[in-house]
Amino acid sequence: RQDTAEEEDTSIEDPWQDEEYFGSYGTLKLHLEMLSDRSRTETYRQVVLRNSASLKNKAVMDLGCGTGIISLFCAQLAQPSVVYAVEASSMAEYTKQLVKQNGCEEVVTVLQGRAEELELPEQVDVLVSEWMGNCLLFEFMVESVLLARDRWLRDGGVMWPSAAALTLVPCRADRYYAEKMSFWERPYGLDFTPLQPLAQQEFFTKPKFSHHLEPEDCLAVSCDVICLDMHTLQVSDLEEMKGEFHFCMEKSGIFHGFTAWFTVQFESLEMGGATVKLNTGPDSEPTHWKQTLFMLDRPVSVNVGDILSGTVTLHRNPVWRRHMTVALHWNINNSKSDADSCQKETWHPIWRRPET
Amino acid sequence: RQDTAEEEDTSIEDPWQDEEYFGSYGTLKLHLEMLSDRSRTETYRQVVLRNSASLKNKAVMDLGCGTGIISLFCAQLAQPSVVYAVEASSMAEYTKQLVKQNGCEEVVTVLQGRAEELELPEQVDVLVSEWMGNCLLFEFMVESVLLARDRWLRDGGVMWPSAAALTLVPCRADRYYAEKMSFWERPYGLDFTPLQPLAQQEFFTKPKFSHHLEPEDCLAVSCDVICLDMHTLQVSDLEEMKGEFHFCMEKSGIFHGFTAWFTVQFESLEMGGATVKLNTGPDSEPTHWKQTLFMLDRPVSVNVGDILSGTVTLHRNPVWRRHMTVALHWNINNSKSDADSCQKETWHPIWRRPET
Ligand SMILES: [Ca+2]
Ligand SMILES: [Ca+2]
Repeated sequence: RQDTAEEEDTSIEDPWQDEEYFGSYGTLKLHLEMLSDRSRTETYRQVVLRNSASLKNKAVMDLGCGTGIISLFCAQLAQPSVVYAVEASSMAEYTKQLVKQNGCEEVVTVLQGRAEELELPEQVDVLVSEWMGNCLLFEFMVESVLLARDRWLRDGGVMWPSAAALTLVPCRADRYYAEKMSFWERPYGLDFTPLQPLAQQEFFTKPKFSHHLEPEDCLAVSCDVICLDMHTLQVSDLEEMKGEFHFCMEKSGIFHGFTAWFTVQFESLEMGGATVKLNTGPDSEPTHWKQTLFMLDRPVSVNVGDILSGTVTLHRNPVWRRHMTVALHWNINNSKSDADSCQKETWHPIWRRPET
Repeated sequence: RQDTAEEEDTSIEDPWQDEEYFGSYGTLKLHLEMLSDRSRTETYRQVVLRNSASLKNKAVMDLGCGTGIISLFCAQLAQPSVVYAVEASSMAEYTKQLVKQNGCEEVVTVLQGRAEELELPEQVDVLVSEWMGNCLLFEFMVESVLLARDRWLRDGGVMWPSAAALTLVPCRADRYYAEKMSFWERPYGLDFTPLQPLAQQEFFTKPKFSHHLEPEDCLAVSCDVICLDMHTLQVSDLEEMKGEFHFCMEKSGIFHGFTAWFTVQFESLEMGGATVKLNTGPDSEPTHWKQTLFMLDRPVSVNVGDILSGTVTLHRNPVWRRHMTVALHWNINNSKSDADSCQKETWHPIWRRPET
């Protein structure tokens, strides 16, 4: 029976897992989660509001529009000539209703279909999209955004977001380590340590999405390890993205892992206009992305002033195109004996959500 | 594509979903959740401890033993002649290691296999099991326990738990209703009410497991609606279990739904000895079962002194044997106009857990 399950997992029917991917966006659960994220949604609203004068008579594309919230912001707060609201999932039917209900059908045109198969009557001035996933790139919706950009954004048109950065920090994760690993040492007076290798395998070899990092658990100042310019980024760049880090430890303590998050920027449509930022890190308002924790195989003791150097590489999964492996290599104070590495792979049947 | 998904859902390869069911118990996640539930695990420890004298030289079966914690309690705190620790999932391999690691291999015999195919050298004096699921019966592991009882418990042997009750209370659920339903009224100044029927369908037609009921959200004194005697209960009884309720409202307010939980009792092996109880309700220490919320299709306004009467019926799913439908029928003050009903079905591919 286990053989059967493994066979199912590795039979490559659809490396993009579109049925699961678009299926999950056909239900309300994920849309509610995103809309309830005020930090995320208000950022897009602010971007539209602050650029409302410049948006006048502009053609806008809202790619992966979901319920159409960003398109509706454009129609309500500015006067674009048209907004093409593109959505591949079955949610598009409801998006049409919402556009009507809010009296925006003159401006907003909902198109159900995949970005790759999109046909528009014209090129657009602005391509707006909320494509960011866990650890910035997970789900790789960004590929669809780049393909749409190359085909439908006019020369000199603007991408929203315009830039993105992945940020990393070494951190403590005492509670998580205690709950998942130390727990087995003496529960109810018994020795359950034979389960620790299983715990390691099950809880620490994949990134922990939905981690909430407390600012005081950061062991150093965070570092932007990968920066993307959304106007020049190429699909081929996504296969392997590499970054470097040098952290100077500001605290002594147990180094349990690295935590990652992202920031995106929305440039102004006017020269010299203010940039809007959405930061999903521990010092900002919490978002539905939370942060992503990569546990080390073994925790390491560190001291104030220690220098933690290394590289992080995001390897896009060559088969499962919405997934990636994050490889971390590091050393402490350039010592070979303190050199270590870990690899964390995102797990491909990941869109099955729990019932709550 | 949606047709394909539906076809998959209704093709009945294994109505017991054993691959998913036992598969999920072959990983640590669920075992850690259960072991970390101190209220649950300490109750079983207390049952063994308080009966340690009477357990001397008794043969015990621990059915669905998981990591073997209850068997280890028996071997550590009492002197049974033998404990048969039965586990169908692949966890059994680790259970053997844990028994050895804790020096209990003389007393505890781990048997990997299904309860239905079990062969023992003798009948047992005590059959202990933690078979309870959400809303008491979900997963219907209780059927395996009853089959094991009829075959392997000696005449006059004791079942732990010995009795179980399902409890119901009418309640408010303001926050859940606001988050899932009122949300669509005016998010970000827009009218998203066309999504409310979808929200109703997606969030309110299935029971909400993992609900945390605050005592102050109870609108009346709770009522035990179904009581099971584990010594006399028959497998055939499980097909349809019916209960009645009459609640006198103690608060005025909005009646959003019914919340259910369960209590189990462990009788003493000695005549007149104290019974140990595990109560998973809102006035007890929280457990990993939490409570189960059944939302009404429409909330109802109620007043102090109103009498809410009705029935609850658990219909075991005739195809998917680990699932059930909960049907609630009720009226307020015997008024036909205030009569209503709802049906909530547990969702069958439910054992897929999220990655965290
Ligand atoms: Ca996203
Ligand atoms: Ca259980």
